[in-house]
Amino acid sequence: MRIYDIIIKKKRGEELTDEEIRFFVNGYTDGSLPDYQISALLMAICFSGMNERETCTLTDAIAKSGDCVDLSAFGHLSADKHSTGGVGDKTTLIVAPLAAALGCKVAKMSGRGLGHTGGTIDKLEAFPGYRTTLSPEEFFKNVRDIGVSVIDQSGNLAPADKKLYALRDVTGTVDSIPLITSSIMGKKLPSGAHNIVLDVKYGSGAFMKSAEDAEALAEEMVKIGKLSKRQVAALVTDMDTPLGFAIGNALEIKEAIAALSGNGPEDLVEVSVSIAATMAQLALGLSSDEAHTAARSLLFDGTALEKFKEWISAQGGEVAYIDNPQMLPTAKYTLDVIAEGDGYIEKMNAEAIGVSAMELGAGRKKKDDKIDFAAGIVLKKKTGDRVTQGEIIATLHSSAEAKLSPAAEIFKSALTIGRKPIEKKKIIYKTIL
Amino acid sequence: MRIYDIIIKKKRGEELTDEEIRFFVNGYTDGSLPDYQISALLMAICFSGMNERETCTLTDAIAKSGDCVDLSAFGHLSADKHSTGGVGDKTTLIVAPLAAALGCKVAKMSGRGLGHTGGTIDKLEAFPGYRTTLSPEEFFKNVRDIGVSVIDQSGNLAPADKKLYALRDVTGTVDSIPLITSSIMGKKLPSGAHNIVLDVKYGSGAFMKSAEDAEALAEEMVKIGKLSKRQVAALVTDMDTPLGFAIGNALEIKEAIAALSGNGPEDLVEVSVSIAATMAQLALGLSSDEAHTAARSLLFDGTALEKFKEWISAQGGEVAYIDNPQMLPTAKYTLDVIAEGDGYIEKMNAEAIGVSAMELGAGRKKKDDKIDFAAGIVLKKKTGDRVTQGEIIATLHSSAEAKLSPAAEIFKSALTIGRKPIEKKKIIYKTIL
Repeated sequence: MRIYDIIIKKKRGEELTDEEIRFFVNGYTDGSLPDYQISALLMAICFSGMNERETCTLTDAIAKSGDCVDLSAFGHLSADKHSTGGVGDKTTLIVAPLAAALGCKVAKMSGRGLGHTGGTIDKLEAFPGYRTTLSPEEFFKNVRDIGVSVIDQSGNLAPADKKLYALRDVTGTVDSIPLITSSIMGKKLPSGAHNIVLDVKYGSGAFMKSAEDAEALAEEMVKIGKLSKRQVAALVTDMDTPLGFAIGNALEIKEAIAALSGNGPEDLVEVSVSIAATMAQLALGLSSDEAHTAARSLLFDGTALEKFKEWISAQGGEVAYIDNPQMLPTAKYTLDVIAEGDGYIEKMNAEAIGVSAMELGAGRKKKDDKIDFAAGIVLKKKTGDRVTQGEIIATLHSSAEAKLSPAAEIFKSALTIGRKPIEKKKIIYKTIL
Repeated sequence: MRIYDIIIKKKRGEELTDEEIRFFVNGYTDGSLPDYQISALLMAICFSGMNERETCTLTDAIAKSGDCVDLSAFGHLSADKHSTGGVGDKTTLIVAPLAAALGCKVAKMSGRGLGHTGGTIDKLEAFPGYRTTLSPEEFFKNVRDIGVSVIDQSGNLAPADKKLYALRDVTGTVDSIPLITSSIMGKKLPSGAHNIVLDVKYGSGAFMKSAEDAEALAEEMVKIGKLSKRQVAALVTDMDTPLGFAIGNALEIKEAIAALSGNGPEDLVEVSVSIAATMAQLALGLSSDEAHTAARSLLFDGTALEKFKEWISAQGGEVAYIDNPQMLPTAKYTLDVIAEGDGYIEKMNAEAIGVSAMELGAGRKKKDDKIDFAAGIVLKKKTGDRVTQGEIIATLHSSAEAKLSPAAEIFKSALTIGRKPIEKKKIIYKTIL
């Protein structure tokens, strides 16, 4: 088998065989195929596409390129969620304990972040003592006893995706439904959950700019998940505007605790409840109505918050910080962004707001950058809201005073203020089961 | 300027600016851009194409990446030819002296071959003493005095093409009109001739399989040549069947000498006369009729043969070999391929016949392979000819007896013999001026 022939075949728009797909994935992962041939093949895939069978095999080849976690001990109760990423997305902190409260077994591996804010693991480290690494025995015990444990993605999970993604990232070949699908599902499948709920975001703060593109990706991922013998559902959700009001690590944890205490922003609560409910629908066989009603009730009666405390405590984190969120890191410096005139917020470019948060210190530009846990943005107004001159639109937080003004400029560039009221978009565009 | 943005732009089907094209050509040539990004860009070009302006700039960037020969001393009389390559193509040996006899100044740099037979320079070395390297002074003096000199492509001619072609060759990105055009013209322009005649071949033995594809390539190359301020014409010629009867280095020289002596095969004579005549048309301002009549007359009255001798002699080659071609290397072993039944030759796959010649020792598979100058094939029958059982179709020549049988098998696989007579194709499909 020759990689050259595989490239030519895909360039001509022909289907690749399963053997050909495994040959190029394994050959690239083990270093026997050079990157310049793989990047040419990836570009040909961007143009010629892949059918479902090809995408499924590509996903499987990526999934099997490294370790696979065996969660069969939890039967069909294991449930996981995955977000395609957005600004202010702290849903895992709410969904994980809520799904556990519903009866799911949430054995979750999360990552650190590169971008606007840290990843879930970075955020959890705001709780002093929280251990992001557990022995397999302890991890399984916590999941069995509490229903939830979240640890750092460690070991050798989908190394093929690491190599392929790094190459796609620099060769303009990220933007392809089969390649995105196989990358996401190829990492998600070896994490072992039987039930997977995908939160596919669209809009200015998401990779997919339009709802239609996000829906197409969501449908493909659900199909591939089912072909891979998992139960998979997807929500297509709005990321044209940040989710909730808080962006930044400690700020997001505070907002998550508020949500678990029944005081969360409407959009964040709706997305979190829907994801957890869908996980329960898949894992426990509940109807959509049953699952949503139960999820909402367990969130608002404090059960999910109790589950959150059990989880954090079992991993060594100080629960006092949950009861007293003001103990979490607080920025030394703040700056208010003030409305310069009257009007309605027509648009809040979530991407630019994310960049502003990163400039404040909330995220990493490079892998080795240190995160300022206290840094970030708290929005007071969101898209569709009316503002009057002099009103505070947002407060910027940072431990470095010099970062406030440049970040404020970026933040302001993200705003479009118009004269007429606009209709707010639904946060959940579609549910695909 | 970032190569990533250039890749994305071309992937989206947008035009690249001149600056972007020069950036990627120069960056790849000087090693500052990695091959995996360039191969992705080349694949995007294969899919999205390039317009005339882009192709012209790409050609110019390749042409200017290395040395450029200045032939302005010969005014507008300098003329060159280029063939896209085929089996049994010995036209340079006939065209160069014939064009010189017509009054053109043929200052030609040729290459060695990788493939079915050696290149022109390999073939010329069959004349003992022939010097393939001359000082610039001697090269120019020979062109001035005799009208023709052919030396080895040396120096640093279009290094960008060497790197780009090597990458295209292994990444499935050869097959693209703008990339082929810029590769051929990017090498041809720095060779300096003001008038260039391209022989664009199509059929089983050529890179372009159909006449239409060859015509499209020819038209593009003529356009780009003119935009580059040269006079350029192209002939689209048939390479479905080998050109002439002889394939192999010494065998082809013998056939070229026969043609220069008025005894050449019809197809070879027609192509050679047309190329030389078109060179004279461009360089001397003759009409097509005038040029063709003059070329035919100078070929058949022995003037071109005399010019051939002057040229070979001026570069140190022994002219006795031209007067007595039997002095040229002769194979120790031969094998006749015999017709197994009666019929008509419907098809002679020129590519497979080329491979058969290479197996006999006539060509190089790898750069360092030694050529067997005596090896090759002499056809007795060609496409359209009637054969009767027991008749010789071809004679295979080699210095290694063991190579004959395997080569004969390949040769036979190239033949399709049918029951009905077929019409012979015209050798010149189209002339583009």
